[in-house]
Amino acid sequence: MPKHWYNIAADLPVPAPAVLHPGTMQPVGPDDLAPLFPMALILQEVSTEREIEIPEPVREVFRLWRPSPLVRAHRLEKALGTPAKIYYKYEGVSPAGSHKPNTAVPQAWYNAQAGIRKIATETGAGQWGSSLAFAGALFGIDVTVFQVRVSYDQKPYRRALMETYGARCIASPSNETNSGRAILAKDPNHPGSLGIAISEAVEVAATNDDTKYALGSVLNHVLMHQTIIGLEAIQQLEMAGDDPDVVVGCTGGGSNFAGISFPFLGLQLRGGRKRRIVAVEPAACPSLTRGKYAYDFGDTAHLTPLTKMHTLGSTFTPPGFHAGGLRYHGMAPLVSHLKELNLIEAVAYHQNACFEAGVLFARSEGIVPAPEANHAVKGAIEEALRCKREGKSETILFNLCGHGHFDMTAYSNYMAGKLVDQPYDEKELAMALSGLPAVSA
Amino acid sequence: MPKHWYNIAADLPVPAPAVLHPGTMQPVGPDDLAPLFPMALILQEVSTEREIEIPEPVREVFRLWRPSPLVRAHRLEKALGTPAKIYYKYEGVSPAGSHKPNTAVPQAWYNAQAGIRKIATETGAGQWGSSLAFAGALFGIDVTVFQVRVSYDQKPYRRALMETYGARCIASPSNETNSGRAILAKDPNHPGSLGIAISEAVEVAATNDDTKYALGSVLNHVLMHQTIIGLEAIQQLEMAGDDPDVVVGCTGGGSNFAGISFPFLGLQLRGGRKRRIVAVEPAACPSLTRGKYAYDFGDTAHLTPLTKMHTLGSTFTPPGFHAGGLRYHGMAPLVSHLKELNLIEAVAYHQNACFEAGVLFARSEGIVPAPEANHAVKGAIEEALRCKREGKSETILFNLCGHGHFDMTAYSNYMAGKLVDQPYDEKELAMALSGLPAVSA
Repeated sequence: MPKHWYNIAADLPVPAPAVLHPGTMQPVGPDDLAPLFPMALILQEVSTEREIEIPEPVREVFRLWRPSPLVRAHRLEKALGTPAKIYYKYEGVSPAGSHKPNTAVPQAWYNAQAGIRKIATETGAGQWGSSLAFAGALFGIDVTVFQVRVSYDQKPYRRALMETYGARCIASPSNETNSGRAILAKDPNHPGSLGIAISEAVEVAATNDDTKYALGSVLNHVLMHQTIIGLEAIQQLEMAGDDPDVVVGCTGGGSNFAGISFPFLGLQLRGGRKRRIVAVEPAACPSLTRGKYAYDFGDTAHLTPLTKMHTLGSTFTPPGFHAGGLRYHGMAPLVSHLKELNLIEAVAYHQNACFEAGVLFARSEGIVPAPEANHAVKGAIEEALRCKREGKSETILFNLCGHGHFDMTAYSNYMAGKLVDQPYDEKELAMALSGLPAVSA
Repeated sequence: MPKHWYNIAADLPVPAPAVLHPGTMQPVGPDDLAPLFPMALILQEVSTEREIEIPEPVREVFRLWRPSPLVRAHRLEKALGTPAKIYYKYEGVSPAGSHKPNTAVPQAWYNAQAGIRKIATETGAGQWGSSLAFAGALFGIDVTVFQVRVSYDQKPYRRALMETYGARCIASPSNETNSGRAILAKDPNHPGSLGIAISEAVEVAATNDDTKYALGSVLNHVLMHQTIIGLEAIQQLEMAGDDPDVVVGCTGGGSNFAGISFPFLGLQLRGGRKRRIVAVEPAACPSLTRGKYAYDFGDTAHLTPLTKMHTLGSTFTPPGFHAGGLRYHGMAPLVSHLKELNLIEAVAYHQNACFEAGVLFARSEGIVPAPEANHAVKGAIEEALRCKREGKSETILFNLCGHGHFDMTAYSNYMAGKLVDQPYDEKELAMALSGLPAVSA
C-alpha cells in the first residue's frame, strides 16, 4: 500500500487558476478557509509538494480493505469478443461500498488531530455521507449529514447506514439553516439538490465555532486522497507486467476519476508516455462536455468561494436519474483545468446505456456496479469495442468505484424497462449559465 | 489461497450416522442422489479423503475476493476494555456480500462440467439465491430460485440482485410444483418457509431430467467448500503469530460455522491442542440448543432423505426475526454430530442483543454486519467480556460471514426500538417434534 498521496499540482505545466473570494474577487488564502477546514487540510489544498505522506493511523484503517483488488476482466473481454485487455480497480470492497472512505478517513483523522469533534457535510444518494459517518465513528467525531430530500425520502437504506454508524441525517432543504429556510419559504416541498445541501452544511460549519465542514469531492485535497487508487493500480499493473493505454473513470465531482487517472497523468507530465485518459459523465448532467469553463460557486446559496471549473451553473437542477453521485452542476477545478489543457477527454452517456453495460458486467464479471460506476463500465466497453473494430489489443483500465447493493431498485426498474433517458432542459441550462457570476479574471 | 478443501470426515473419531432413504430406511447410496446432484459433488458428499483439490477454474474465480481479510479488532477490544485479542475473518467482500459464493462457485462449476445447464434452488432472505445466481452467470447455467414468499415480497433487493445476475426468482409456495400447489390449496396466502422452498426446488430437479438441485448449507460437501475460510484463517493467524483459544460462528444450516471451525477442529482431532468452538444460534430458532438429535427430513414435503441432526421438526415455523439465513428447522448433520461428541458448544441469543452487538461493531470496526453475522459478533463479544471478568488475554476468532447492506431496514427498526424478541411457540415446537419420523436406528 502506498505511503504517500500524489499531488498533481507539482507537475502541472500551467498552474490551475486561483480560487477567488466572492466579495473581494481576490485569491483566497488559507485563513479564509480556516472556519471550514482544519489547517492541515487547507495546506494540502494549496500544496505543490509532489508527495504528501499518508499518516500511519490512516493507513492502519485503510488496511481493512486496501490495497483494493485490481482484476483482469477476462470474462467481459470474452463476452465482447475484443482483443483489448480490460482491467478494473474495485473500490466496492470498502466498508461503505465505494471509494469515498479513501478521503473520509483522512479528513476525519486530520479534524480529530486538530481537536475538532463535530463535522457537517452534505450527501446526495448517501455514498459520501455514509463514508464520513463511518470515518467519524472511528475517530470519535459527531457527523451531521444534510441529505438531498428526494434521496432521504426515496432511498432510506444509506440513511440507515449513516445512522447505524451514529451520524445524524437531516433532509435538505431543512429548517436548521438560513439557506434551507429561505428555500422552504418559497417551496415547502422542494426536493433539494446537492448545491442546496452544500449551502446548509457550509452554513452550519461557518456559524458554529466547534464545527467544521467536509466535502466528498471537487476540492484538490479530496482528489489527492483518492490518488491512492491510481498509485496502487500502477504497482499492481507492474506486477501483472502490463501498462494501460487508456484509463477510464466516471465523473460527478471528479474525485474517483482523479484518483485513478492523476498518478498516470503524473508519469506522463514527468516525461513518461502519453496515455488516453477518458472521463465519462451522465448525458443528463454533462458539466465537462456541455458546461462552460468559468468561475462559479460550488453551492446554491453562494456561500463557497468561486472556482474556475466546467459548470452548468449553480442553479442548474439535473433530471432525476439514478446515478445520484454524478448529479452536480460543477466539476473539480483540477479536472476542469486538465480538460482545458487537452490532457484528458470526456464523453457522456444516458443511463439506459450505462445500466445495459452494468448488467453485462455483472453477468460476466460477477460484481453489480453502482449506477455511477456503470458510466465507467460503459466507457471501458466502448473503448474495448473500438479496439475490436480497429483490431488493436490495447490495455484498458477503469475504476469500478462502488458496488450497487444499495441501488437495486434502479436495476429492477431498468430490467422492467421503466428507466427513461431524461435529457436536461436546454432552457434551464441557458438560464443557469446566464446567471454565472461576472469575474473579469 | 489454499489449494485444497478440508474434509473433516477423514478425522472424525466416530463416523457420522448414515443418511437414510425414507422409503427403505436403508443408507442412501450415490445413485439415489444422482437425480439431484452431479456425481462429482455426490462423491464429495460421501468422501473420507482429508484433502480435496479446489479446481483451478474455481480458484480463478475466488481470486476476485479471496483470500478474504483477517482483521484484528483493535477498536472493538478497546471499546469493550477487554484483555482478549479479537480477530474476525470478513466474508462480506465477495460479490454477493457473504460467504455463500464459496460453495456456489464450485457447485456451479461441477454442474457445468457435468453438462448441466439448469439448476433449481431455494432461498430465504436471498444470500444463497443471489450467490448461486452469481455463480450460474459465470458458468452459463440457468438458475431458478424459489424464494420464501415473505422475503420475496418484503425484501425485493436481493431478488433484484438475483435477476440482475440473470436468475429467475419465484415466490414460494408457488403454482409451479405439486408441493407448492398443495400448500396454496390449503392457504392461498401462505408466507412460505425454507422447508417448503426446498421441497419445490427438489421437486423441480427430481422431475426434470435437465435440471439439478443445489443447496447452500447443511450438506457435507457444502460445509467442506466453506473450509477455505478456516484454512485461510490458520495461515493468516500464523503470519500474525497468533492462535485462537476460541472460535465463534453463527449457525443456521451450519455452513459458515463449519467453514471457520472445521479446519481448527481438524488440527485438534489429529493431536493438536483443544480449542473452544462456539456455535451461536438465534433463540427464536434454536436447533442446536433446544432441538432433538434425531432423524428428520430436510424439507416440509418430505422429498429429501432422512438425516440425523438437531431438529425442531420439519413442520416447525420459526418467528419472523430478521436473520433470515438462520431460520431453518434443522442443523447440518456434521455439526450436529460434533455437538453430540462434545467437540463444540452452542449458545442462543435473541435478536435485539445481536443487533446491539452489531451496532457496537459497526461503530468501532466500521463494518455493518448482516443480521446473521451479528450472532457471531454477539458470541465473540460475550467471550471477550468473560475474558475481562476473568482477567485472561485469550485470543478469539469469529467469522463475520456477510455485510448488512441489504438489511438496513432491520437496523432502522432496531434503532427505532421497533424490534421485538419473539420466542418460538413451545406448543408448536412440541407438535413439530412429536411428528418426527420413526426411525429404529
